[in-house]
Amino acid sequence: MTKRIGLFGFGVVGQGYYQIAKKQKEQWIPDTIVVKNKFKRRPSDIKFSYNPQEVFDKNPDYVLELISNTEEAYQYVTEALKRGITVISANKKLLSAHLPELIQLQRVFGGKLLYEAAAAAGIPVITNLETHFEEDNIVALEGVLNGSSNYILSRIFNNGLSFSDALRLAQQKGFAEDDPKFDINGSDVASKLNILCLHAFGKFIGEAHIPTFGIQHLGEEEIALAKSLGLKIKLIAKAEKDYRGISAFIIPTLVAEYNPFHGVENEYNAVKITSEHLQEQFYQGKGAGSLPTGAAVYGDLIKAKNGFGYNYSKVNFDKPLEEKLLNLGVRVLIKSKSESQIESVLFSPELNQHIDGYHFAVGKVKPKNFNRLNESGEVSIIALPDDLSADQISEGLNCAQNAEEMV
Amino acid sequence: MTKRIGLFGFGVVGQGYYQIAKKQKEQWIPDTIVVKNKFKRRPSDIKFSYNPQEVFDKNPDYVLELISNTEEAYQYVTEALKRGITVISANKKLLSAHLPELIQLQRVFGGKLLYEAAAAAGIPVITNLETHFEEDNIVALEGVLNGSSNYILSRIFNNGLSFSDALRLAQQKGFAEDDPKFDINGSDVASKLNILCLHAFGKFIGEAHIPTFGIQHLGEEEIALAKSLGLKIKLIAKAEKDYRGISAFIIPTLVAEYNPFHGVENEYNAVKITSEHLQEQFYQGKGAGSLPTGAAVYGDLIKAKNGFGYNYSKVNFDKPLEEKLLNLGVRVLIKSKSESQIESVLFSPELNQHIDGYHFAVGKVKPKNFNRLNESGEVSIIALPDDLSADQISEGLNCAQNAEEMV
Ligand SMILES: NC(=O)c1ccc[n+]([C@@H]2O[C@H](COP(=O)([O-])OP(=O)(O)OC[C@H]3O[C@@H](n4cnc5c(N)ncnc54)[C@H](OP(=O)(O)O)[C@@H]3O)[C@@H](O)[C@H]2O)c1
Ligand SMILES: NC(=O)c1ccc[n+]([C@@H]2O[C@H](COP(=O)([O-])OP(=O)(O)OC[C@H]3O[C@@H](n4cnc5c(N)ncnc54)[C@H](OP(=O)(O)O)[C@@H]3O)[C@@H](O)[C@H]2O)c1
Repeated sequence: MTKRIGLFGFGVVGQGYYQIAKKQKEQWIPDTIVVKNKFKRRPSDIKFSYNPQEVFDKNPDYVLELISNTEEAYQYVTEALKRGITVISANKKLLSAHLPELIQLQRVFGGKLLYEAAAAAGIPVITNLETHFEEDNIVALEGVLNGSSNYILSRIFNNGLSFSDALRLAQQKGFAEDDPKFDINGSDVASKLNILCLHAFGKFIGEAHIPTFGIQHLGEEEIALAKSLGLKIKLIAKAEKDYRGISAFIIPTLVAEYNPFHGVENEYNAVKITSEHLQEQFYQGKGAGSLPTGAAVYGDLIKAKNGFGYNYSKVNFDKPLEEKLLNLGVRVLIKSKSESQIESVLFSPELNQHIDGYHFAVGKVKPKNFNRLNESGEVSIIALPDDLSADQISEGLNCAQNAEEMV
Repeated sequence: MTKRIGLFGFGVVGQGYYQIAKKQKEQWIPDTIVVKNKFKRRPSDIKFSYNPQEVFDKNPDYVLELISNTEEAYQYVTEALKRGITVISANKKLLSAHLPELIQLQRVFGGKLLYEAAAAAGIPVITNLETHFEEDNIVALEGVLNGSSNYILSRIFNNGLSFSDALRLAQQKGFAEDDPKFDINGSDVASKLNILCLHAFGKFIGEAHIPTFGIQHLGEEEIALAKSLGLKIKLIAKAEKDYRGISAFIIPTLVAEYNPFHGVENEYNAVKITSEHLQEQFYQGKGAGSLPTGAAVYGDLIKAKNGFGYNYSKVNFDKPLEEKLLNLGVRVLIKSKSESQIESVLFSPELNQHIDGYHFAVGKVKPKNFNRLNESGEVSIIALPDDLSADQISEGLNCAQNAEEMV
């Protein structure tokens, strides 16, 4: 039987979906496609609408919400769920902001909401958390979750580009937004980690509460240090759970060759899940792009048709969904022009070095300080592998400096 | 409602399952556990049976087939499926031998058969092929699918052990069978690749038809060569599909650092899937062991309870399931004492070198010759990365030889 599908949005993701649906059985072609900008050129063989209500007037079986705006997406998605319609969304900002309410609407009105494309795009991480890991106890989840940041870091480390040149290239390639702020300051990653935490641990943290430090303050000195140590820097989202509670944060991290994230390059995303029974699993795939995201949306639709929905199996619905994060110190290399600024956040110091007008220190920083440091713009922090000693870092810093002076 | 579960086998996998089930809701504890050897010591708090019929007398909702024997497993599994019972199996040998019939029994009698643990153990590759990739066109599937072989190669490359010492260690650690023949000659991998090909391409190849070369003939020279080139050797299962048909084979392969299999160490397995829409995905996880395999079995049970079954979505049931493989040449380094033996299989030659009583050559070999060469025991072949030139190999061989002479 042909299903009625209403589609909101015909951008990167919407077009990817459409291209895939067109190749398959006819029933998955949307009968209404709503877009926003009346002055945009559109393919002449597809009918578009500018009236959101038209989707609902046609009593759709499924609604696909693939738009860039959050408030309007909230209107469309809640409206659909209140009608008991199954919704597929790729909108991490929307989901991250409203998941508790959206879960509640599914439970009350019986419509399902699937959103595999919203976190790590093509990688089926949410589905696997909900099925394969359903009865397993997840103790850690780590990820490279922003394709643009990762692309920039790849160009810096593999092609020797400067940060600003790498960013420009990412924009040219369409990996970064016109305003790439949310990509490189970690905010996009925080949305995704917030969604994943709910499926991994059954708790809603709220992205504003996830300590976040982006890649935009990475300086040449840290990059040179990483290279001189034979390491790379990746923007890592990390969440851990133990008997005390959950810790989660986002921070540029030095990774060694043995770390599976070391090989995650360009616009790829990756997720590592550590659990009691399955132990350690690692998934890697395209984190952005028209076809991979369109395929994830298409996959959600097929899963929904087959009766699949998220059970939110880790959630205990008799308890509050919200949970506060622990605030355990993270071992970092910190760089600043101001020693007192470092002293105000660093504890358990292991190293203190002064090079070329910068103070470098190794020690621990509480994640609660990350956002403030991120916004101040005067400090750079990088998380360190446990087995990298302060002495090695000191040597690396000297070595990187000498290399620079030789140039 | 409590479900009745009959369990066959209480070895590595059965005990892993039991340990996990005991921690969860009570309904998944088997009410009958059938084992074989009446003289084995067993835990005193669990009741065992030696009569397979007892499982069926109790009218189980689910049957778990986790035994080591293939013929008896065939009896149990077909009996259960003929009664319309849902069966979970980890038995790659059984599945690889009888999948066409077992699919037919599911279709006729309505019972489901799930077997995630049978290929790549803890990695949910079959489920993802059946769901996430359901409507995507898979063009290639590659894997490291045998934990023991991979453990041996890790010990050789990372700890400098000899082949025989590494094998002994794998046996001590319980990763290799007492008779490790099927691990190291590639036969276990062939079973798994045969199963995965059915889910990836919808075709049954038959493991006897999959050209297979194991790691048991890898000599010191090839290992030294790989090291001198900064590469590793992994036992890779590879299947590809294009307009002409399917190619598939298993062969030790030189892998460079940029290859995601380079970082797959010890008892880990990994699978890389290339498809039209999702493009390239890579999954890594534990390929053996009590808890990871037990968790995969447990996960199958939960999925079955939630209504999930394999749709065999790539299979066209109006056509024969069986398909013959293409026999396209594979570029290899071949080593033998006999030059004429090399000449009898090699074409498109690129290199011919004589070192220390061995002939080394680079060129192409038809996969149909793999099994014969594997069994002859006088030849070693390794597949080569496309970007590794014959000149580099020649240099590497000289360099490796010089290093040896220096010792
Ligand atoms: N791009 C990726 O790789 C990717 C990956 C994962 C998730 N996502 C998420 O997927 C969603 C869509 O991203 P995108 O990259 O496809 O964005 P995009 O290329 O900017 O396209 C956005 C589309 O939404 C439409 N739109 C905006 N506001 C609308 C409204 N109020 N009503 C109807 N249509 C509206 C736009 O209409 P006009 O055509 O009229 O401008 C446009 O067609 C976002 O939530 C994004 O975060 C994207
Ligand atoms: N080990 C792994 O990591 C792994 C991973 C993936 C798949 N698998 C597959 O899972 C299956 C089980 O492997 P395993 O490692 O658990 O084997 P195992 O440790 O050797 O245990 C085999 C169990 O099967 C029982 N058994 C053998 N024949 C039987 C029969 N006719 N009736 C009833 N029980 C019988 C044995 O009984 P006794 O206790 O009386 O000897 C034993 O309990 C195999 O098909 C294997 O290929 C194993």
